[in-house]
Amino acid sequence: MPFIRECIVTTVKENGGVHIAPMGIHEEGENLVILPFKPSNTLDNLERQGTATLNYTDDVRVYAGCLTGRSDWPTCHTQVIPGMRLENCLAHTELEVTARVDGPVRPRYTCKILHEATHAPFHGYNRAQSAVIELAILVSRLHMLPQARVHQEISYLRIGVDKTAGPRELEAWDWLMTKVDSYQTSKKESRQ
Amino acid sequence: MPFIRECIVTTVKENGGVHIAPMGIHEEGENLVILPFKPSNTLDNLERQGTATLNYTDDVRVYAGCLTGRSDWPTCHTQVIPGMRLENCLAHTELEVTARVDGPVRPRYTCKILHEATHAPFHGYNRAQSAVIELAILVSRLHMLPQARVHQEISYLRIGVDKTAGPRELEAWDWLMTKVDSYQTSKKESRQ
Repeated sequence: MPFIRECIVTTVKENGGVHIAPMGIHEEGENLVILPFKPSNTLDNLERQGTATLNYTDDVRVYAGCLTGRSDWPTCHTQVIPGMRLENCLAHTELEVTARVDGPVRPRYTCKILHEATHAPFHGYNRAQSAVIELAILVSRLHMLPQARVHQEISYLRIGVDKTAGPRELEAWDWLMTKVDSYQTSKKESRQ
Repeated sequence: MPFIRECIVTTVKENGGVHIAPMGIHEEGENLVILPFKPSNTLDNLERQGTATLNYTDDVRVYAGCLTGRSDWPTCHTQVIPGMRLENCLAHTELEVTARVDGPVRPRYTCKILHEATHAPFHGYNRAQSAVIELAILVSRLHMLPQARVHQEISYLRIGVDKTAGPRELEAWDWLMTKVDSYQTSKKESRQ
């Protein structure tokens, strides 16, 4: 079982723009492994460019935003690879693909670290941030999960949000909950 | 509702040694507020010294260790205040108490930031780390919670651990689970 970093992956699109996606990145010794879904923009960009950037931000709105149609976050150029990173991340890692194993669902791109930089201090854990990350994962799997389980998990996650969130966490939570609500409404309507 | 940083607070004991305690620190504008329980070592040290250090580490064994009798973590001197910080933290903040409001359970110490430094990059969220933090909070409240709820929350938290933990997270989880198990065994025995 590998250690998984939940972070924001930025890759360069064919037109030179940046593609921003939250992903779980596997640590494998000194290497990092990206497993993009087939098909996906990250997969296409990795294939074409052979590079990617991992962005570590404590602004959980980026995670929630990417799942709710808000992907226009400020970016700037990376230092070593020809890429883009989040401007407001705490740190970032620039990667080069060194090996690729194809697969029917999630091909594996093993990458080596070319550069890493720290931009701002980590300020410790925050239960609301963790809850938003968990809710983001739930939202990405709504179509696979029973509604009762979704509700039960949300009730639990909401405790940490109610107790420890700041404005950014509340905004991120609300974006995701709007998506949960509209999914459930659409399911109800399709049953009528 | 303030934003709460779950971090490791280090204070200096009367004999010059370091006291290490996981705590939730409240952000209040530019200030940080420490709310130590009455009685506690952190409270005594804050009263006497008027300074404290917040340590932000991604080694969740420190959190789990402090709750399970393992508090001997490497420390080094702070830079501005006469204190100690965790050697292996990602960042730390040195604080001076500027105001104190007494209270029967948790007095409030409002602090200003005298110094902050970053030592290593944050590597993104990890669901197992978040689960260990939640389990640590559960463990600190075992005597107040119904056992059924404790079991239910642990089953949920274990999912993230099983999927994303590395060796440090597994070790921290095991320390805390041993404490949960021995608490439950002792409760059963006291009923016999």
